[in-house]
Amino acid sequence: MVAWNNFDKLSSYGKLKASKAVKLQEVMAGESGKQRVGKYSVPMAAGMKFNYAAKAVDDDILNTLKELAEEAQLAEKFEALYNGEVINTGEKRMVLHHMTRGQLGNAVVADGGDKREFYIGEQKKIADFANKVHNGEIVNGAGEKFTTVVQIGIGGSDLGPRAMYLALENWAKKNGCFKMEAKFISNVDPDDAAAVLNSVDVAHSIFILVSKSGTTLETLTNESFVKDALKKAGLDASKHMIAVTSETSPLAKSSDYLQAFFMDDYIGGRFSSTSGVGGAILSLAFGPDVFARFLNGAAEEDKLAANKDLFKNPSMLDALIGVYERNVLGYPATAVLPYSQALSRFPAHLQQLDMESNGKSVNRFGEPVDYVTGPVIFGEPGTNGQHSFYQLLHQGTDIVPLQFIGFKNSQIGTDVDIQGSTSQQKLCANVAAQIVAFACGKKDENNNKNFEGGRPSSIIIGDQLTPESLGALLAHFENKVMFQGFVWNINSFDQEGVQLGKVLAKKVLAHETDGALKEYSDLLNI
Amino acid sequence: MVAWNNFDKLSSYGKLKASKAVKLQEVMAGESGKQRVGKYSVPMAAGMKFNYAAKAVDDDILNTLKELAEEAQLAEKFEALYNGEVINTGEKRMVLHHMTRGQLGNAVVADGGDKREFYIGEQKKIADFANKVHNGEIVNGAGEKFTTVVQIGIGGSDLGPRAMYLALENWAKKNGCFKMEAKFISNVDPDDAAAVLNSVDVAHSIFILVSKSGTTLETLTNESFVKDALKKAGLDASKHMIAVTSETSPLAKSSDYLQAFFMDDYIGGRFSSTSGVGGAILSLAFGPDVFARFLNGAAEEDKLAANKDLFKNPSMLDALIGVYERNVLGYPATAVLPYSQALSRFPAHLQQLDMESNGKSVNRFGEPVDYVTGPVIFGEPGTNGQHSFYQLLHQGTDIVPLQFIGFKNSQIGTDVDIQGSTSQQKLCANVAAQIVAFACGKKDENNNKNFEGGRPSSIIIGDQLTPESLGALLAHFENKVMFQGFVWNINSFDQEGVQLGKVLAKKVLAHETDGALKEYSDLLNI
Repeated sequence: MVAWNNFDKLSSYGKLKASKAVKLQEVMAGESGKQRVGKYSVPMAAGMKFNYAAKAVDDDILNTLKELAEEAQLAEKFEALYNGEVINTGEKRMVLHHMTRGQLGNAVVADGGDKREFYIGEQKKIADFANKVHNGEIVNGAGEKFTTVVQIGIGGSDLGPRAMYLALENWAKKNGCFKMEAKFISNVDPDDAAAVLNSVDVAHSIFILVSKSGTTLETLTNESFVKDALKKAGLDASKHMIAVTSETSPLAKSSDYLQAFFMDDYIGGRFSSTSGVGGAILSLAFGPDVFARFLNGAAEEDKLAANKDLFKNPSMLDALIGVYERNVLGYPATAVLPYSQALSRFPAHLQQLDMESNGKSVNRFGEPVDYVTGPVIFGEPGTNGQHSFYQLLHQGTDIVPLQFIGFKNSQIGTDVDIQGSTSQQKLCANVAAQIVAFACGKKDENNNKNFEGGRPSSIIIGDQLTPESLGALLAHFENKVMFQGFVWNINSFDQEGVQLGKVLAKKVLAHETDGALKEYSDLLNI
Repeated sequence: MVAWNNFDKLSSYGKLKASKAVKLQEVMAGESGKQRVGKYSVPMAAGMKFNYAAKAVDDDILNTLKELAEEAQLAEKFEALYNGEVINTGEKRMVLHHMTRGQLGNAVVADGGDKREFYIGEQKKIADFANKVHNGEIVNGAGEKFTTVVQIGIGGSDLGPRAMYLALENWAKKNGCFKMEAKFISNVDPDDAAAVLNSVDVAHSIFILVSKSGTTLETLTNESFVKDALKKAGLDASKHMIAVTSETSPLAKSSDYLQAFFMDDYIGGRFSSTSGVGGAILSLAFGPDVFARFLNGAAEEDKLAANKDLFKNPSMLDALIGVYERNVLGYPATAVLPYSQALSRFPAHLQQLDMESNGKSVNRFGEPVDYVTGPVIFGEPGTNGQHSFYQLLHQGTDIVPLQFIGFKNSQIGTDVDIQGSTSQQKLCANVAAQIVAFACGKKDENNNKNFEGGRPSSIIIGDQLTPESLGALLAHFENKVMFQGFVWNINSFDQEGVQLGKVLAKKVLAHETDGALKEYSDLLNI
């Protein structure tokens, strides 16, 4: 049995707080820096590496983190999770998203069936459906092939799938597996749906309605929006829509859809990119084979996350270094900086994944904790960010730990050679330069041009952003967030913090308000 | 003469630190909350309002902020700025971006001419050029009209113009002034340029090369990328490109462009949306009249920023409340949350504007300061954010001040009525609900469902996102950032923090590296 204790009750917590701080400017200089880059590196799936040489750690701190990993029983907790223990204590649910992409643990039986079979079964249904759309067995009312797929969903039903689609769009086009263009409608702002509908040919579009509960306000509203548009175009909406939902939702048995695909309560929205929530749109856009490769990358990374040796477990290591930065060094935010335009929305997905999972103030038993938990997460792709907020990262008064991602090769392969180097080389040169600039700084007599350094970063390096490496990246961060939640002894799998706003919004719409809420409602003409 | 003193040398700083904290949960409840919403509101340009009722301030704190505004001579410093004093001390430059959109102050003569005439002259040249493109006087090599405009620029030459374009795209389509589709190439990642080029019809595209210095690595590289593509398509690149640059840049006199439009060193990239940097692409996309309306909105807001009465000066008030939150309450980040899908990239622009301007550790004389300066800025549109990172905002261990933006009406006007309300009403109901949920919270015996409240926010409310209100919004935040820089006694107008990375990247490309930098370069195959 695992023991669930608050972080500050662990002896390794005290030891970590007492550990001697590392001066990055010193250890990253000269021969020491060279050795660190070689030494502080751990293999990831799909041929990638997690390199943490530029993090403010040394062997002493790392060994304390190893003690922490053992004392907090991180590997055992992950094992308990994938074997079906009720880890989501708030909602009294198992947490089974790993099962959508691999075979890590024992069979888990629930709701009258084997869950692994259930997830794989739904995946097969989706693959079958996508193949039929692609080969023209499933067509529109006029007997023509569908050319576009539009996902209607918000939060976890939007950010992850959208980020994954953008990450693979150019790769798929380049590699001959681009099947259909995908678009996304998320916001309840009517201009979101209206603009997307104005930009697609609705007669050749298939819409995926994604809502686990079948009750999400934005998604149901946007469903009506789309149905209106289909009706106005003289089309039968039920021939243009599919649903991804739970078997118990009001959408499950509706005749309003061509077909419904199922997920369940054991997969949280922000962890659902590898379920039907990501599976339907990615399989339609790129084909089921590409989606399967994405799942393989994630499964391979999950296996590494199950390794009990911290130094062979990249997501656990990433998690613990992050805990050290947050709880000992006191840094309040983390920036995610992919040097890849294809990952333009990956930081937005990680922002949800991390902040919604670990932005909590009570432990898994509902008791307030006495330490800080999840940080603010933000980021934009490099080199764009260099010309934007990096000024503060380099010379601001607060230190922000950085999470770089870089690939040796581009996806499309079109490039130009200017002044002896390609754009891809310039891109990679910039991320290498930034790591060292942040860590080492540079003294200047003019304080305005002085760089203190001492700003920690890690980098994940891959050969190319492919379905496999994307799956591995996604799983890495999902598992990192999970491990941090274990250390903080919080429930990373519920989100009670989103409820109050929903309740009050309903009151506003029902005109059941007084005080400040009524005043704001009046100001906004509701 | 104005006096430039560090913030902690001001007597109002001590007074502010000693002021009694406001319990938002109490003051925003019941009758008190109702009165605050009515009272803590100040008109902005274009019929908008800045409402700060849900900020953790009261009359005492606000009066101290008024003292601070006076002691720090904020109004006088703004006056000195727009009258041409050398406010950018690091680079020894004037700061004249306000002059691109109005007539706030005296004539400023520099570089042998009147600067106002110079900016207006360039604006007219751009308007003339755009009109000729629209009416078919300027056409491609085959005598056909251009249909698409592509901006090549990064940082300030990308984020602002891109955010403004997205903000007005649907409005322009709805109001019959959409002239040309716009696209943007920014990243040195070759996949960025390749993907954009694959998505446009280059034969009917006009490319705007934007670089003040004419030496920006990413922009020059992408220029070559585009020229290659034009050449491969058998087109004469010089008939498809214009430049926005300074008169002294290598691009200024080149025969490679149809025409060059000029800006100068007195306009920083992140403040250049109202100059030719934003002017060329917005005038081509929507017509010069729309761009002029955008400038009018900004100019109207600038006038309010010049008001010496803090309580009639929305950007100064916003700035000072932010300083109180940052330096007294100790909050390290601020979220920007527009309830408008059209403002999807507005937070990314503000992220640059704020973090690049005020992410500094030394004062304007190059002396280290002993207080924190610019916060981390991040954000996504609502209601999307509600299903993402709001969990942490509501229940996380750190408090993040919030900056909401909302409009009574949508841009496109297509809407559906579900359960008695339109999507636009649902959108507005949600932002009203969030403000009160964050401020007041809600007690629950189950700690996991408990909302502490006490999380401060302000909201800017407008009728609709139009060219005028967008201009006013932009100017509001530009001026807010400027006033905060004045309080912190820093130079908000240089960005020395971006230099070191550039220097090291060049070394990597020249293979002049050793130690850690060489190791990272090897790992990335450079």
